Amino acid sequence: MKLTILGCYSATPRTLNNPTAQVLEIKNHLFLIDCGEGTQVQLRKSKLKFSRIKHIFISHLHGDHFFGLPGLVSTFRLLGRESELHIYGPKGIKEAITLLLKLGDSWTNYPLYFHELESKEPQLIFEDDKVKVTTIPLQHRIYTNGFLFEEKEGARTLNAEAAQSWNVDRSQYHNIKAGKDVVLETGEIVANKLLTFDPPKPKSYAFCSDTKYNEAIVPQLKKVNLLYHEATFLETEAHLAEKTKHSTAKQAATIAYMAQVEKLVLGHYSTRYKSIALFKEEAETVFGNVVLAEDGKSFVVN
Amino acid sequence: MKLTILGCYSATPRTLNNPTAQVLEIKNHLFLIDCGEGTQVQLRKSKLKFSRIKHIFISHLHGDHFFGLPGLVSTFRLLGRESELHIYGPKGIKEAITLLLKLGDSWTNYPLYFHELESKEPQLIFEDDKVKVTTIPLQHRIYTNGFLFEEKEGARTLNAEAAQSWNVDRSQYHNIKAGKDVVLETGEIVANKLLTFDPPKPKSYAFCSDTKYNEAIVPQLKKVNLLYHEATFLETEAHLAEKTKHSTAKQAATIAYMAQVEKLVLGHYSTRYKSIALFKEEAETVFGNVVLAEDGKSFVVN
Repeated sequence: MKLTILGCYSATPRTLNNPTAQVLEIKNHLFLIDCGEGTQVQLRKSKLKFSRIKHIFISHLHGDHFFGLPGLVSTFRLLGRESELHIYGPKGIKEAITLLLKLGDSWTNYPLYFHELESKEPQLIFEDDKVKVTTIPLQHRIYTNGFLFEEKEGARTLNAEAAQSWNVDRSQYHNIKAGKDVVLETGEIVANKLLTFDPPKPKSYAFCSDTKYNEAIVPQLKKVNLLYHEATFLETEAHLAEKTKHSTAKQAATIAYMAQVEKLVLGHYSTRYKSIALFKEEAETVFGNVVLAEDGKSFVVN
Repeated sequence: MKLTILGCYSATPRTLNNPTAQVLEIKNHLFLIDCGEGTQVQLRKSKLKFSRIKHIFISHLHGDHFFGLPGLVSTFRLLGRESELHIYGPKGIKEAITLLLKLGDSWTNYPLYFHELESKEPQLIFEDDKVKVTTIPLQHRIYTNGFLFEEKEGARTLNAEAAQSWNVDRSQYHNIKAGKDVVLETGEIVANKLLTFDPPKPKSYAFCSDTKYNEAIVPQLKKVNLLYHEATFLETEAHLAEKTKHSTAKQAATIAYMAQVEKLVLGHYSTRYKSIALFKEEAETVFGNVVLAEDGKSFVVN
């Protein structure tokens, strides 16, 4: 599982600061999360093969999370895309994109599906045999969701060496792979667990931007491997965080601590601060494993 | 009069190629012409004081000329803009921008005026005491206008030296400035023209993107100082120009030649070509004074 930050600054795009967009590589999927203006150029810079993106998750309809989407949808058309594209986002997103494409008489020639969200409860919005995605209702100035990406537990895999040591006949291997115990010729039963390897531990990533400090999300974040939590401000500007429904670095770290996550990624920094190093310092007063998102940077979970 | 190219490539923004946007500095105005995705970042790079932009002219509603506008409008709000902003563009532009601002609950706190265009005839859309702007109806796949920016002729200015040589009393100076002839004490009449300097020759700029080859626009372009005409293709791809309602470099030069313009600026290049130098070469087979638009480059008309 690998997270690539395309942009992690709040408010307005600048020469060196891109608004929110990320790509999560998980179980052969390339999920795009948020799509601020300039995301398609950041995708090109990232060298990710972005035609592989089939699912785009939009947290909310503020411009710095969303204004790159019409351009990306159009670019896919110009690049000759044929495969379907699914967009998950707040109610209204379909009307907006549809209107812009209509005005330009540029309807896509690939299938475009909108999955509009309006529930204020966590909602399973994507699932296949390996991954599931659930919304994390956030509290911001407008309707906003974070997203929880979870790998499913894989199948146990045959331990051929163990099977041989038990003198299991090879004809039994498909039963072992199907999860069954084995009855030996002696009548002895060998538990499936002794003949197989544990599947890799499923990994998980939670994306939480934008939100005020909100402990209600902690249960959903419990023990995720990676948590991205917005930290627009430092504690010195806690009053602005309160007013604009954003979080401080310390508040983000408190959520990470309460949810016992493995690693916290901070981002969505206000460009008022000269250095983002202060965000890490502040967060580390509460939680041990903090890293800073930076445009172009990747984080791998093994 | 100074034209700054923010972006001059067609279709999709790339790492080094920005879609169409330009700033025209004319008689103390800063006019923004088209606004592809990433325009606000290009404005920052240009070092232009872009809060001074009060008028934005959008040629048509294809994404590469328009998708940077919602972000720019939002950024003006975040930067605390108070002065009014006027947007001139095809019918539908108001609905689009309004919807995006509404979805983000981010209505501007400065006055925002839309001037929607739907006429297929040239139309005077802006005028003050120094400048006027007229649409140039173009022929593209959707409703499109170019724009003709013209300085008005200024007032003649007093030639004090000449007035003294005619022994004109200083009490007459305000009459001279008002354009009147002077009656000397001798009864002799001195023509105003002999007592004043000619005003500077008014300058003009015509912006024509996107359009197929269309001789009908030539009369409007007659003898402009600067003509920007799109050249998406070279003659080797004339069939694509025909099909997509764009122009070749040679066609752009033919229009410039017929209109006897002073200088032709080419732009809107397809990114299929390795070098844009070929556009200049091709155009120069028809017209002598050709320059190439490049992102970040400026052209001054003295």
